[in-house]
Amino acid sequence: MSRTLTVAAAQLGPIARDESRQSAVARLSAMMREAKTHGADLVIFPELALTTFFPRWFFADQAEVDAFFERAMPNPAVQPLFDLAGELGIGFNLGYAELTPEGRHFNTSILVNRKGEIVGKYRKVHLPGHRDNEPWRPFQHLEKRYFETGDLGFPVFEAFDGRLGLCICNDRRWPETYRVMGLQGVEMVLLGYNTPQHYALAPEQDHLQDFHNHLVMQAGAYQNGTWVVGVAKAGSEEGCALIGGSCIIAPTGEIVAQCETLDDEVVVHACDLDACRRIQDNIFNFALHREPQTYGLITETKGKVAGLGGKT
Amino acid sequence: MSRTLTVAAAQLGPIARDESRQSAVARLSAMMREAKTHGADLVIFPELALTTFFPRWFFADQAEVDAFFERAMPNPAVQPLFDLAGELGIGFNLGYAELTPEGRHFNTSILVNRKGEIVGKYRKVHLPGHRDNEPWRPFQHLEKRYFETGDLGFPVFEAFDGRLGLCICNDRRWPETYRVMGLQGVEMVLLGYNTPQHYALAPEQDHLQDFHNHLVMQAGAYQNGTWVVGVAKAGSEEGCALIGGSCIIAPTGEIVAQCETLDDEVVVHACDLDACRRIQDNIFNFALHREPQTYGLITETKGKVAGLGGKT
Repeated sequence: MSRTLTVAAAQLGPIARDESRQSAVARLSAMMREAKTHGADLVIFPELALTTFFPRWFFADQAEVDAFFERAMPNPAVQPLFDLAGELGIGFNLGYAELTPEGRHFNTSILVNRKGEIVGKYRKVHLPGHRDNEPWRPFQHLEKRYFETGDLGFPVFEAFDGRLGLCICNDRRWPETYRVMGLQGVEMVLLGYNTPQHYALAPEQDHLQDFHNHLVMQAGAYQNGTWVVGVAKAGSEEGCALIGGSCIIAPTGEIVAQCETLDDEVVVHACDLDACRRIQDNIFNFALHREPQTYGLITETKGKVAGLGGKT
Repeated sequence: MSRTLTVAAAQLGPIARDESRQSAVARLSAMMREAKTHGADLVIFPELALTTFFPRWFFADQAEVDAFFERAMPNPAVQPLFDLAGELGIGFNLGYAELTPEGRHFNTSILVNRKGEIVGKYRKVHLPGHRDNEPWRPFQHLEKRYFETGDLGFPVFEAFDGRLGLCICNDRRWPETYRVMGLQGVEMVLLGYNTPQHYALAPEQDHLQDFHNHLVMQAGAYQNGTWVVGVAKAGSEEGCALIGGSCIIAPTGEIVAQCETLDDEVVVHACDLDACRRIQDNIFNFALHREPQTYGLITETKGKVAGLGGKT
């Protein structure tokens, strides 16, 4: 039985602040239809794909923040995307801002099967940015203010005849993210991102954003023998430049498909999930080669230790 | 006070099986002199730099194996290199096979200061390859047979006015290696390697060896904001092709110097150790951004877990 999963990376161009959910969903739906014409089984959309990237602004009024959140999923504005998935028999991965009935805020990603049913959910763990308004910046990055740290770990789901894991944006920079999923045998990691070209704390590295984006995803793929699909919201959004570079990465770390624009764009690749074993059973055969007795610091400490502690 | 450390990556071409320690040391010494003319403070030599890469053969007689090991360091054959270091006022990092007085075998790396004194030692943790003779392979890779797993963790040393860490060859493929040192504030990781072009378990990926070599080191550098110096024994050694690609990598993950041959070759770069902080204090500010409560599997298990366990 073939385990080829044909996936579409569906990059979004900018979403204006005043653009409606209905408009965003129409754009996602158009890309889903295009993905289907290319034979895709599963389409991956970006992080926070229903609105503009609102953490770039400081809002004193929580109601202004909450307006960017979804109180239910699906909800009437997004239901057409679920309906279309069921109609086309295509799954999808979607990022959105989640406001729970208890009033908790998460940066969330869901996996939806070919029937339009939610079969997996993830809440972003590695929240970048800062908590307080910092007016010296050209724009804010207030994810630590507007979201709680995700409370679902790094889940891996049996779906689409494989093992699929979810993470979001800044999670992709951390090797721990991929490793925790790799130890669960993940075969494909789905992730979306909104990554500004400009990083206010180290602007001399702005020209390296695309390099870093691919470097971390390619390393995460290779070091765990997993497919990685990384999908951007790209382009100039409310005056803030977001990188593109959405791509599909093989378990060898090779980029096998990549968007060429900063706008709505779909690229498709037929991914052989069994190819993961050529890495996972060999050079990265964890059971043979990992040495966790030496990894203690990774879970014992959050920040750097004060002294030197190599022998853990 | 400047914290610029000028380092030389001193790649070795092949060492023949019948080449003497004296001959190898003469080649290392010549490169040390060349490094000094370029203003180097520290020269990095490859893994197992005193002999041919002997794990490519199965030896039934342990005495044949032990002949490749050093019973003391320095010893008379290697003493000239230590003397030259003291004379030139240049430090070095050297890999060799260590046989302890208790009869234990390690794949070892030492850090030597400008006075020719050993100030740091590491024993390879991630031993690749296999334990038993596998005659179907075109050559063996018997590191798991000939060496014990290192028992010194991943040490970081205060030396050369910075924090320097050591690892060896296959260690560089594992993100855990860099992270354990990163959590100790490492500013430069020194490593040597002997990497065959051909990997018998997945030969269809042989053309990716150079890509993988750089990918893992560049990711390790960036994700921990550290310089990485990776130095090969390269070229056709006893009929076995070894990759080159020795390089010096900045904390941004950029390769800033790289060898162009597969032979004895020195490349030099003046490394600003303070540049590490532009990564370590920002995008990879561990104390702000790591979430170790989600990393449990990394130390809880060696191999893949049987079920799915994202919420750890």
